[in-house]
Formats: sequence, C-alpha cells, structure tokens
Amino acid sequence: MINSMSADKIVAEILNGNRAILARAMTIIESTHPKHHKLAGEILDKVMPLVGKAKRIGITGVPGAGKSTLLEALGMYLINSGLKVAIIAIDPSSSISGGSILADKTRMTTLLREYNAFIRPVPSAGHLGGTSRRTRELTFLLDAAGFDVVFIETVGVGQSEVEVADLVDFFCLVQIAGAGDELQGIKKGIMEVADVIIINKCDDDNKMMTEIAKNVLKNALHILKPKYKEWQTQALTCSARDNTGIENIWDVVEMFYATMEPNGKVASIRKGQNIRWMKQQIEENVINMIYNTQDIKELYSKAKASVESNKLSPRNAVETVSQYIAEKLTYDVLK
Amino acid sequence: MINSMSADKIVAEILNGNRAILARAMTIIESTHPKHHKLAGEILDKVMPLVGKAKRIGITGVPGAGKSTLLEALGMYLINSGLKVAIIAIDPSSSISGGSILADKTRMTTLLREYNAFIRPVPSAGHLGGTSRRTRELTFLLDAAGFDVVFIETVGVGQSEVEVADLVDFFCLVQIAGAGDELQGIKKGIMEVADVIIINKCDDDNKMMTEIAKNVLKNALHILKPKYKEWQTQALTCSARDNTGIENIWDVVEMFYATMEPNGKVASIRKGQNIRWMKQQIEENVINMIYNTQDIKELYSKAKASVESNKLSPRNAVETVSQYIAEKLTYDVLK
Repeated sequence: MINSMSADKIVAEILNGNRAILARAMTIIESTHPKHHKLAGEILDKVMPLVGKAKRIGITGVPGAGKSTLLEALGMYLINSGLKVAIIAIDPSSSISGGSILADKTRMTTLLREYNAFIRPVPSAGHLGGTSRRTRELTFLLDAAGFDVVFIETVGVGQSEVEVADLVDFFCLVQIAGAGDELQGIKKGIMEVADVIIINKCDDDNKMMTEIAKNVLKNALHILKPKYKEWQTQALTCSARDNTGIENIWDVVEMFYATMEPNGKVASIRKGQNIRWMKQQIEENVINMIYNTQDIKELYSKAKASVESNKLSPRNAVETVSQYIAEKLTYDVLK
Repeated sequence: MINSMSADKIVAEILNGNRAILARAMTIIESTHPKHHKLAGEILDKVMPLVGKAKRIGITGVPGAGKSTLLEALGMYLINSGLKVAIIAIDPSSSISGGSILADKTRMTTLLREYNAFIRPVPSAGHLGGTSRRTRELTFLLDAAGFDVVFIETVGVGQSEVEVADLVDFFCLVQIAGAGDELQGIKKGIMEVADVIIINKCDDDNKMMTEIAKNVLKNALHILKPKYKEWQTQALTCSARDNTGIENIWDVVEMFYATMEPNGKVASIRKGQNIRWMKQQIEENVINMIYNTQDIKELYSKAKASVESNKLSPRNAVETVSQYIAEKLTYDVLK
C-alpha cells in the first residue's frame, strides 16, 4: 500500500501520528532493494528540516545486565511525564537465530501497550556499518515523527557500541556488580565513550556490592581521559526491577543536555557525527563501485589471478590496479 | 650512499650477507617519501622470486608476559641449531614516547651480539594499516636475505594482533598465569587466531598456577571454533628465564609446518594473505585518491560545508559525491 503513496502523503501521515505508516516507512528506509531507494530518499529529504528536537540516547550492556527492564522502567517514567518515547533495539542475534527479536519485544510488555511508546527491533545482520547507516536514518525519522526521546539499545559485544555511540548524543553503559567485572568496559573501549555508567540490580542482597562497584567505577573514571571537557562521566546505581533510581538517571540525562546545549556542544556532536557518517558512506560506496565497474573488475580479477599463481607480486598488482583507477579519476599520482 | 646504488647492487649485497645494506634497504621500504618509492619497488621486485623459504612466526602477549625474554631464548636455541633468525619488533609506544625502541632492543642483549640474529624495531606510528603494509614487505626482504625464521613481535593491545596474524604462518600468544586472566585472549579475539598459546614464567612458585592455567586454556580451546581443521591450537608452558620448555615450543612450530605444508596449506595461507593485503592496499589507495583529486576534493568540501550548515542532508551529500565519482569511474549505478 505504502509503495503507491507519495513521499508527501507518507510524511503527512507520520506527522499525523499514524504508527502503521511510520513502521512501513522505516522498512522502506531499511530496505536494500533498489526500488525502495528513491522513495526512502524522498521521505528523508522531507523530514530532515524537522529533525533535531529529540534527545538521542544510546544504551548498552552485557546480556543479563537488565537493559530491557531498565528501558521499560525509564520509558514508563518518561511517558508518565508526558513524553513520547521511541526505542530502536539493535539485535545482533537475529541474523543467526531469527528468534530473539520477538523475545526482546515481548520483554517490554508494559511499554508495548502504550501509544506514546514505539519499539523497533533492527537486526544487525552481522554488518555493523550497515546497521549504523540505516539506524541513523531511522533516528531522524522518529525524531521528525515527534518522539521526544529516541533510545538506541545495543547488546555489549565490543566494537558495535563504539559505533552506536556515534549515533547518539548521550551514551549509557549498563552494568551489574560482582565477579570483578566492573572494569571490563575499560578494556573494550566502551567506558571511554560512556556518558553515564548505570549499575543495575541494586536490590535485596546486592545493594552493598552495587555501591562498592559504583565507587570502583568512580575512581576509574577519574583516571580515564574524559570524553568532553564539559562533562564528567557519572556512575549511578538503580534497580530497574524495583523501579528505584530511575528518576535519578533521567536527571543526569537532563543535566547533560543543560550543560552541553547552551554552548552548542550537542549541535557540534551531531555535526561531527553527520560528517563522519557522510565520509564513511562515500568511502563504502566508492569501494563498492571499484569492484562493480566492469573494466576495473576485470583488471582486478586478472591481477588477483596473477598474484595467486605467483606471476605478479602483490605490490605490483596494487600498483597496476591503483594506477588504472587513478587515471579514470584523473588523480595525478606524482603531485 | 644506498640511494646512489642500483636495486641490483643493493639486492646483491643483501644476498651476500651485508647487514648494513639490508638495514638501509628496510628503511627505504618503510619510507613514505616519494623519492624512495621507485627504488623500494625495484628492490622488492628483485627479491620476490626468492621469497618463500622462511618460516614466518608472530608473537604477541600483554606487556610483562616476557615476550622479549622468550624471543631471546627461542632465538638463541634456533641459532645454536644453525639457523638464521630475524625479529621485527612492532613498537606501539614509539610514536608517542620515542623511547621504548632502545629499551626493546637492549632487552635482547645476547641475540644482539649474534651475527645470525637480526633485530628490527618498527614503530607502529599509531596506524595499523600502515604497519602491516610495510611489515609484510620487510618480511619478504628478510626471507629473501636468507633468514630461516622471521619473527614478528607485537604487544598485545587488541585489534593489531589480528592484523599481525595475517602477516605470519604461525601465531603464538604468550600469556602468564594468575589473576584469572587466562581467558582474556578470547574476549579480544586473539585466541581465535593463535596457533599456540604459551604460558611463560613457569618457574619457582609459579609452576602449579601455570599448569592450572594451561588446563583452563586447553578446555577453552576445545570449545572455540578451530582456526584450521588440520590444526588444533596447542597450550604449552615454558620458563624463558630458566630456559625450560623452549625446545618444546619449536617442536610444536615444526609439527605445524609438517602438518600444514604437505597439503599445500601454508602456501594457501600465504596466498590468502597476499590477496587480502592487495585488496586492502587498493582500497586504501582509492580512498586516498578521492580526497586528493582536485575536482572530487572540491565537491566533497562543498558538500561537507553544506551538511555542516544544515543546508544539505548527509544522505544527499553522500548521493551527490558518490554519483560524481561513479560517473568518473563509469560505474553504472542502476545496473
């Protein structure tokens, strides 16, 4: 149905609160099918002037840290404060099992019932660059659609968090106390990109451990080079299960914006992200082109075969193919 | 002096065992200066037919694992067995402090006195791609120069090891027991690329801990997906300080080659590395070209400025620049 609608009509419906059309438009933006490409571009062009009002918050943490429960508690808190909340849940397992999307969605059962909440699972499909390409555009769409807060949730599996940090204004690392794992985030390079570290499951017998972990983290944070000179990464505790410490988390988020927005820092974070993203997309496109342009492809295959049969040194093969591309691009190697 | 020598003369001197000329030729290969580019290419072209006899061994491990002491013990063992040994020590700190190169070199004092040992520190200069580009060619040169074994040593700092693994036939991970850190390698993705894990400092009070660590690792290795179906990653203990277990390590290396060489597996590992390297270099060159070709550079700068001032969506900027490059490359977007 949506394929027969104009971009104007689709955007009008989205701005009008039509969640079914919003979901379909997201599918079109995510699509890799060429026939959706033009419509996706038109939709995004139309929404771009409306983008910029939503707070973009990233949430990461190892499996079992309680991210979904925390997102549900935080989401309900925001909805009860009169805000509209969208969640993009990046699902690394779905490309393999196909099964965990539903599991994630049904975990946030209370939020799912709320009109002012919108939950969208995004399969990572094993390709990080691809995820962030589409996810950034989904964030733009949700922002334009009037959501006040857009969360991007990702499971803590290493490199991907650092990419997700580049999609958001504010990045939360969710941890749990115990097993001496408080500082794992440092090794993975996640702690350096976190704006707040939340130690969840501060409940029952866990309270003391959680407080100890918070202090360990606070000390570690003083040693780490800060991400911004204007903001010191905070360490907080909460219990998503018992719904305690949730308001506190949001206070820290608001404090971040109150600190960073007046001096144009949020705008400059977003500007930097857009430029890096633009650069990365152009580079991906160009690499894709060189392997899919007939004459270059043929030359590359020939060079590759010669290297494989030891008839050509890899260095010479690189020179030959690079020189050929340089000529097409009118790049002057000697300048 | 070497600049006035022909590539023929330089290669003849290297094959004749002239270590001073070898060291200078390595500097020329490492040089990013355009005036060295042609000579480096000529030298490499001449040595390529001679490349393939040396065993290429990677060694990594966290600082303090005793890599230098182990390399010295292993190097001396090989020299005493009548072999010629070269060591390329990738030094990640040298780009910052400039100071640790000497520290590393002087640590292998016994080896430094041996004519049949050659130690070359290579600054990583903060750029991994750059290191492996040059290091691969240095390996070729040392191989052609008649070294039987070329070691590439790197400090365990994450991603770089996986790159170094792609420069060698056989990859050793050096660890020490204790602090429950036996399995750290898994998280960093290093264990997956290791062909042997050596637990060093199996001496004095440490012996039992080391044996326990070995068993933990052996169990973990059975769970991990093997790197090759022909080779099961081994776990060994040694004391580089006491010179025990060193022969054992070399036996495992020889067993690896004895297993992998007859079925052409070593040749196919090297072939795969050459192709990946070739691909990566072409891609790096092309990316470099697009930012340095006058008209593309101007279009990119204009698009970037428009994105920065919110006059153009990042998506449109990507489209505009990509489309322009596509036309120069004669890439047909619609096919």
